[in-house]
Amino acid sequence: MTDSTSARDVSSNGRRINDFDVVAFDADDTLWKSEDSFQRAELIFEQLVSPYVPEGIDLRDALHAIERSDISTQGYGVKAFTISMVRAAVRVTDAAVPASVIGQIVDLGESMLLEQVELLPEVPQTLHRIGLETRLVLITKGDLVHQLRKVETSGLAHHFSDVEVVHEKDPEVYLAVTKRLGVEPERFLMVGNSVRSDVLPVIAIGGHAVHVPYHLTWDLERVDDHEEDVVELDSIGEVPAWLGL
Amino acid sequence: MTDSTSARDVSSNGRRINDFDVVAFDADDTLWKSEDSFQRAELIFEQLVSPYVPEGIDLRDALHAIERSDISTQGYGVKAFTISMVRAAVRVTDAAVPASVIGQIVDLGESMLLEQVELLPEVPQTLHRIGLETRLVLITKGDLVHQLRKVETSGLAHHFSDVEVVHEKDPEVYLAVTKRLGVEPERFLMVGNSVRSDVLPVIAIGGHAVHVPYHLTWDLERVDDHEEDVVELDSIGEVPAWLGL
Repeated sequence: MTDSTSARDVSSNGRRINDFDVVAFDADDTLWKSEDSFQRAELIFEQLVSPYVPEGIDLRDALHAIERSDISTQGYGVKAFTISMVRAAVRVTDAAVPASVIGQIVDLGESMLLEQVELLPEVPQTLHRIGLETRLVLITKGDLVHQLRKVETSGLAHHFSDVEVVHEKDPEVYLAVTKRLGVEPERFLMVGNSVRSDVLPVIAIGGHAVHVPYHLTWDLERVDDHEEDVVELDSIGEVPAWLGL
Repeated sequence: MTDSTSARDVSSNGRRINDFDVVAFDADDTLWKSEDSFQRAELIFEQLVSPYVPEGIDLRDALHAIERSDISTQGYGVKAFTISMVRAAVRVTDAAVPASVIGQIVDLGESMLLEQVELLPEVPQTLHRIGLETRLVLITKGDLVHQLRKVETSGLAHHFSDVEVVHEKDPEVYLAVTKRLGVEPERFLMVGNSVRSDVLPVIAIGGHAVHVPYHLTWDLERVDDHEEDVVELDSIGEVPAWLGL
């Protein structure tokens, strides 16, 4: 059951900026595009590999299943995704896929690591406005070297006092991060596009969260059912007003 | 020019524990074995791929060259190494390697991620002894999810107030880490097996370092020439005596 605050009357439902010592932002699909890149890569993967796939097998489903089972050892991010694509190509084709195609898959992964960061609308202004009032932090999961490269090349690094690349976004990790930042959970606000990763675990530790959905959601980030009231805004640009700014 | 303190008269040349607010340890090949695993994997890689390699090409050299050129985008660690192995297998054989072999290479990488941590001698005792006196921190580069898994399964996690997985070990990163830990560089001691990563950049920021060599050193960690005096001890078990403990 999802009960979202209407985005219409943002300011009247909002918290005040003074309620928070830290406002933290997710990165992928909150500050900049990410899922688009994965979905483009999946399309190319499909074009490359499908000629070698036996009839009746759904290549995308197989890739997603392998991704899901690889996460506990490989973690999140482009390198893990690249390895899952290679593994899927080999398994699903019963090793009939040529090595030249594997080479193209690995190059595809590399090109994702090097893609330019594409900011979402209103992001710099929003960070600037909120950053005038309180401390901003970035909390992202995924590949360490890739996430840091994106932070560096985004032009947004100067807004954040801290950049935390974490291996998982669960209550335990959020507790550790808030402790490390020296902030009480009840004075911590997280803003992100994933109810599963950015909202529910923060509420679980007594913190606050704002959900700003992105039009694409990775399968593994979907939650269909939860009890908590979730504050949802239409865009990141509405966060300052929600904070009374 | 390397001028190492003899390990024989450790205590008389040493610093005192009271000189430091934080003693930090590298992880791979300082607390537990790591390079052995990479070298075993390279052997298996060679056995798997060499039947498809044209005469006159050195497969290992090619792998190392690809690893080296991949680091800036892929970073350090087993996933990056796995991707470099796949790329090397495809390139060096001009895509003649079968996909079944690629599948085995990817499984080899996965098995490295799941290997049990094998502690080096005297590590728990040393951490316990120094930890009685001062704050201990672990600083490692490499794959986030893999390093955290090793910390967790090593049985050593409780010794450390902080675990920092960094994308690179250069002076800039050490400065950021010491700042984050709230320690002055001159009261910071780093212990590790790599002169390049654990010693020189720490000295560069005005910190202190002890080199504890491991009998295997990754090619990319080798430094043949440096001006700095480096304190070198035969084993981690000598660090407490060097600290006057």
